[in-house]
Amino acid sequence: MIIVMKPGATRENIQRVVAVLEEHQLQAHLSTGKQVTIIGVIGDKTVLSDTNLELMEGVDKLVPITESYKLTNRKFNPEPSVIHIKGFTIGGDGFTVVAGPCSVESREQIMQTAVFLKKCGVHFLRGGAFKPRTSPYAFQGLGREGLEYMKEAADQTGMAIITEVTSLKNLEIAIDYVDVFQIGARNMSNFELLKEVGKTGKPVVLKRGLSATIEEWLNAAEYIMTEGDTKVILCERGIRTFETSTRNTLDISAVPVIRHKSHLPILIDPSHAAGVREYIPALCRAALAVGADGILVEVHPQPSKALSDGAQSLDFEQFQSVLKVLKPLASICGKVM
Amino acid sequence: MIIVMKPGATRENIQRVVAVLEEHQLQAHLSTGKQVTIIGVIGDKTVLSDTNLELMEGVDKLVPITESYKLTNRKFNPEPSVIHIKGFTIGGDGFTVVAGPCSVESREQIMQTAVFLKKCGVHFLRGGAFKPRTSPYAFQGLGREGLEYMKEAADQTGMAIITEVTSLKNLEIAIDYVDVFQIGARNMSNFELLKEVGKTGKPVVLKRGLSATIEEWLNAAEYIMTEGDTKVILCERGIRTFETSTRNTLDISAVPVIRHKSHLPILIDPSHAAGVREYIPALCRAALAVGADGILVEVHPQPSKALSDGAQSLDFEQFQSVLKVLKPLASICGKVM
Amino acid sequence: MIIVMKPGATRENIQRVVAVLEEHQLQAHLSTGKQVTIIGVIGDKTVLSDTNLELMEGVDKLVPITESYKLTNRKFNPEPSVIHIKGFTIGGDGFTVVAGPCSVESREQIMQTAVFLKKCGVHFLRGGAFKPRTSPYAFQGLGREGLEYMKEAADQTGMAIITEVTSLKNLEIAIDYVDVFQIGARNMSNFELLKEVGKTGKPVVLKRGLSATIEEWLNAAEYIMTEGDTKVILCERGIRTFETSTRNTLDISAVPVIRHKSHLPILIDPSHAAGVREYIPALCRAALAVGADGILVEVHPQPSKALSDGAQSLDFEQFQSVLKVLKPLASICGKVM
Amino acid sequence: MIIVMKPGATRENIQRVVAVLEEHQLQAHLSTGKQVTIIGVIGDKTVLSDTNLELMEGVDKLVPITESYKLTNRKFNPEPSVIHIKGFTIGGDGFTVVAGPCSVESREQIMQTAVFLKKCGVHFLRGGAFKPRTSPYAFQGLGREGLEYMKEAADQTGMAIITEVTSLKNLEIAIDYVDVFQIGARNMSNFELLKEVGKTGKPVVLKRGLSATIEEWLNAAEYIMTEGDTKVILCERGIRTFETSTRNTLDISAVPVIRHKSHLPILIDPSHAAGVREYIPALCRAALAVGADGILVEVHPQPSKALSDGAQSLDFEQFQSVLKVLKPLASICGKVM
Repeated sequence: MIIVMKPGATRENIQRVVAVLEEHQLQAHLSTGKQVTIIGVIGDKTVLSDTNLELMEGVDKLVPITESYKLTNRKFNPEPSVIHIKGFTIGGDGFTVVAGPCSVESREQIMQTAVFLKKCGVHFLRGGAFKPRTSPYAFQGLGREGLEYMKEAADQTGMAIITEVTSLKNLEIAIDYVDVFQIGARNMSNFELLKEVGKTGKPVVLKRGLSATIEEWLNAAEYIMTEGDTKVILCERGIRTFETSTRNTLDISAVPVIRHKSHLPILIDPSHAAGVREYIPALCRAALAVGADGILVEVHPQPSKALSDGAQSLDFEQFQSVLKVLKPLASICGKVM
Repeated sequence: MIIVMKPGATRENIQRVVAVLEEHQLQAHLSTGKQVTIIGVIGDKTVLSDTNLELMEGVDKLVPITESYKLTNRKFNPEPSVIHIKGFTIGGDGFTVVAGPCSVESREQIMQTAVFLKKCGVHFLRGGAFKPRTSPYAFQGLGREGLEYMKEAADQTGMAIITEVTSLKNLEIAIDYVDVFQIGARNMSNFELLKEVGKTGKPVVLKRGLSATIEEWLNAAEYIMTEGDTKVILCERGIRTFETSTRNTLDISAVPVIRHKSHLPILIDPSHAAGVREYIPALCRAALAVGADGILVEVHPQPSKALSDGAQSLDFEQFQSVLKVLKPLASICGKVM
Repeated sequence: MIIVMKPGATRENIQRVVAVLEEHQLQAHLSTGKQVTIIGVIGDKTVLSDTNLELMEGVDKLVPITESYKLTNRKFNPEPSVIHIKGFTIGGDGFTVVAGPCSVESREQIMQTAVFLKKCGVHFLRGGAFKPRTSPYAFQGLGREGLEYMKEAADQTGMAIITEVTSLKNLEIAIDYVDVFQIGARNMSNFELLKEVGKTGKPVVLKRGLSATIEEWLNAAEYIMTEGDTKVILCERGIRTFETSTRNTLDISAVPVIRHKSHLPILIDPSHAAGVREYIPALCRAALAVGADGILVEVHPQPSKALSDGAQSLDFEQFQSVLKVLKPLASICGKVM
Repeated sequence: MIIVMKPGATRENIQRVVAVLEEHQLQAHLSTGKQVTIIGVIGDKTVLSDTNLELMEGVDKLVPITESYKLTNRKFNPEPSVIHIKGFTIGGDGFTVVAGPCSVESREQIMQTAVFLKKCGVHFLRGGAFKPRTSPYAFQGLGREGLEYMKEAADQTGMAIITEVTSLKNLEIAIDYVDVFQIGARNMSNFELLKEVGKTGKPVVLKRGLSATIEEWLNAAEYIMTEGDTKVILCERGIRTFETSTRNTLDISAVPVIRHKSHLPILIDPSHAAGVREYIPALCRAALAVGADGILVEVHPQPSKALSDGAQSLDFEQFQSVLKVLKPLASICGKVM
């Protein structure tokens, strides 16, 4: 951490700051310029939690130098993590496709989808049973019934299940059915939920919050990992900006940034980012080429009948044609698919 | 709702859309222009939930006309709501000051603050016992112990307590201690929590999410109100933008917008919006003049020792000088303070 | 400036950075922590313009400590500036009202408006002759003819004229007619235009760009001031965010931030910020209470006939009722109006 | 256009709106719902420019249905445009690489770069002679001297030159030297400059403004095209958001959106979007895969000595390794490179 003093800070102001640092067993390195003095602070800054240095007389601002996240930080864990789930993997050389409907709507719907996806070579089935919707009057999901249908579909096809949980209550219901929990964008900063999910030790897909910086996202992952759960998979799904021609703005650069800052795998969700079906194939190709570890895409047997997100769901034929383009691209990019 | 057809939509496309509408007992009004045809839809649109009209051939886009929130909507409840709490009120002609530390840190701290605030004429004491923090390594609050201290302080001074809850678990703990629940910005879209809070029937301060539109915010309030709880108080606390010289960007225009769209009272939280102590007095004055129903401001006996948000907390003297400026302003603005 | 080295930086990496600094006659102060080494750089950093230190081996990032703007910086000019124009002032104890139509549309329109405003005690008449419009098919202003009408209106009423210029060509036309130039939000980063305006030495209202940070805004003002023109007046008019219920988001906090960082006066333009007439009175009150030096507000004799911005223009009666509320507020706030 | 009436609008209010429409030879189609009445307006809406319908009594809001841009609109020009420049093309099946330094700094620098790029198969040389910089104290470019060096380099190698112009004055200088004008992000809404560039009839690369919506961007292109210049090439270079780990947020979805809405070719500038050299290769791959018509990338013989944008410039070796990856990717994606 660096402490920047105000231009008019007195020698006494500076000495008092140094004294506080030394009281806390920290070293202070002064650099005195013509305009301002800066103080480099060396040592474990957590001891300063009860000292709001920025409020001391003569202090202009504090500049943090090191990241606050540790377990998710590539500096402390340089090797990329590979997550193993039911014999399949996410991360490493693979390009993982997670697919399925936004919501589980009926036994037939999810079974039909799972059988189709399996035939396409997809191993991860997504589907929502607890749906957080902007309006309380919109369809909220089938709950446990939906999980039962998913489980049956997974058992029959040998697929792994990914589903969103939105509270401790539905986490406790879902734990018996699912292989991977998903924390949605709206709950990325629901730290109580993150801790509870972390305690299960199960793999977790952690979507980025609509207005979360990458640093806040990694701190959210840190909440899960401090509970002992190391199987965190990040998922970029678009951030909120002023642009309205897409539902959100896909921050594709998050992939190289995360690679640089963290060892965790990262997926792209083009469906929520675009919100418009016809833009999704292009974004799937971009996700692969930019180096993501996979995609999470909404597929529905009959999008025009979907109870949620119909407009951004691919039908079976569209999904197949996306896969057909991705496969040769993957082999050029050195990814196993 | 309006359905806009594509320029190349055929007569058949249009007829099929009309047929679907009529199947659902809705009326379709066609306007056929040189470039496009638009279809006005009359009737209860909720019957369309399984019909993704935007996916029908020839359809370009759907344009919603009426808001999805009802109970919070001024159109259905034209009189401004006044919330009664422990003999005090929020809304109407009053300008309510809610004050207190970010976190309850000790018995002395909250007691000293409460006694001081009461002497200043403040009736609402805020203080956090469950703190959602960006980093899992930061101070997370005293929990039940903090609530006990608050309760003692409130009992002794006759103040009402406002505190944040972040999960069902701590809601169940807090319910015996507090007069008003607060839902923080990070949990505005935690719909499960909103429903649980709504079931208690207690007054709720609902902070706006960092990247929530006003429409989403009112829909979040709708989640609480559909559970039967009508005592919702909105609180604008800054939204996330590109500007970094303040912690968030206070959307002061939200006050007249909310007045126009909703009957719910609205407070301003200048502390979280600014994030910098010296900007807070100016924002308090703006909050009063713009027509807000009150402010929610962080006050700490010794900000430089605060365990959270020290840099944005006022000390006692600063708070008093803010009140001194607000009072004559209130009387000019026709507000009782 | 501070140079933060990477965790794995070698002693040699560090020595090479220090050597480069010393070659440029700069002092390097090392702070060596357990994780990283930081280097405080003391001296005139402009000598480093051909040295991209962040590209040297072992360097993680550069952290600037001092602002890049100087002439606009309060640190170098602690007294608030007061701008004198035709016997009137902007800044200091006054609260200045600048009013008039978005566009000059006819001789009658501007004359009628000027006479009315003068009677209300307004000394600054705004009106656009060169209109930058999003679509090339929208009304683009009357040009020189509009300026002539404004000049006539100003001569007759003794008011000062503020008008926008959008290119060197129309700057050269306007210079004979106007008292204060306005640089619009769209041209805040048109540095060539800023320099040309600066050369005239005339007062300039510099609107904040839609997505300009406060630091970029002050740097834009610096472009004008480096040409010798010290009469710069800032104007906050809303920034671009995700919120759509107002045309832009008024960043009211910009007022205390600018007070803190700069000596230049700052106006608020509630008309462009809101984009909706009924929100404007509330924002005018907030502008006064927050401590702005004045407002710039659109007034039109017949808003429903305006060729631009009709929906956000006040009619005469509405404007009068705003003034009636502002005057007692000003006297409470210690502002002369 | 659709006119939405307020819930309480009277029959008289509605009739008056209809009367105004009919006065302007427009047809009005009424849809009367339980809550609100909407009026579909059929005919040429430009006749309404002096009628602010939203201010008429009983009117709630206007909802535009058709886009305001015409010449750039794919609806009116369904075939993708291919721009021919000096025997090379942008658009169609090709993937065009535009490369070169941010600024021309010396004869040697640009000559060395041009010779290298030509050997790599690059036909378009970029380089800035007039540099818009945030601070007036930063390097502002070599001006005409820089253009002369570029011209010499282009003549010797047979490359086409792309350079930014920032005012009419430097447009007039540059016109004798360059093959393609570039309008930078800061000047996207400098409509006077757009019109002047349009009058030259030369090809123009139009960068997207930092906070411009796609609709505003296409309207800016429309300004150029209404002057008769049809050779407009769009360039996405990142938009301004809250995320700070990259300089801007690359809006990769802009590529499929532009394909859908316009016939103009679109390039991606990963250098300005990322602002960090190590993220650029990944973004180049994404640009190709998503379907862009090319990239515009900063290459410098010695980035650590660059006078501007050194941190985001590739050196020769890095650039070559990017090309090596792009070529097989292009052939898979059906692009000629």
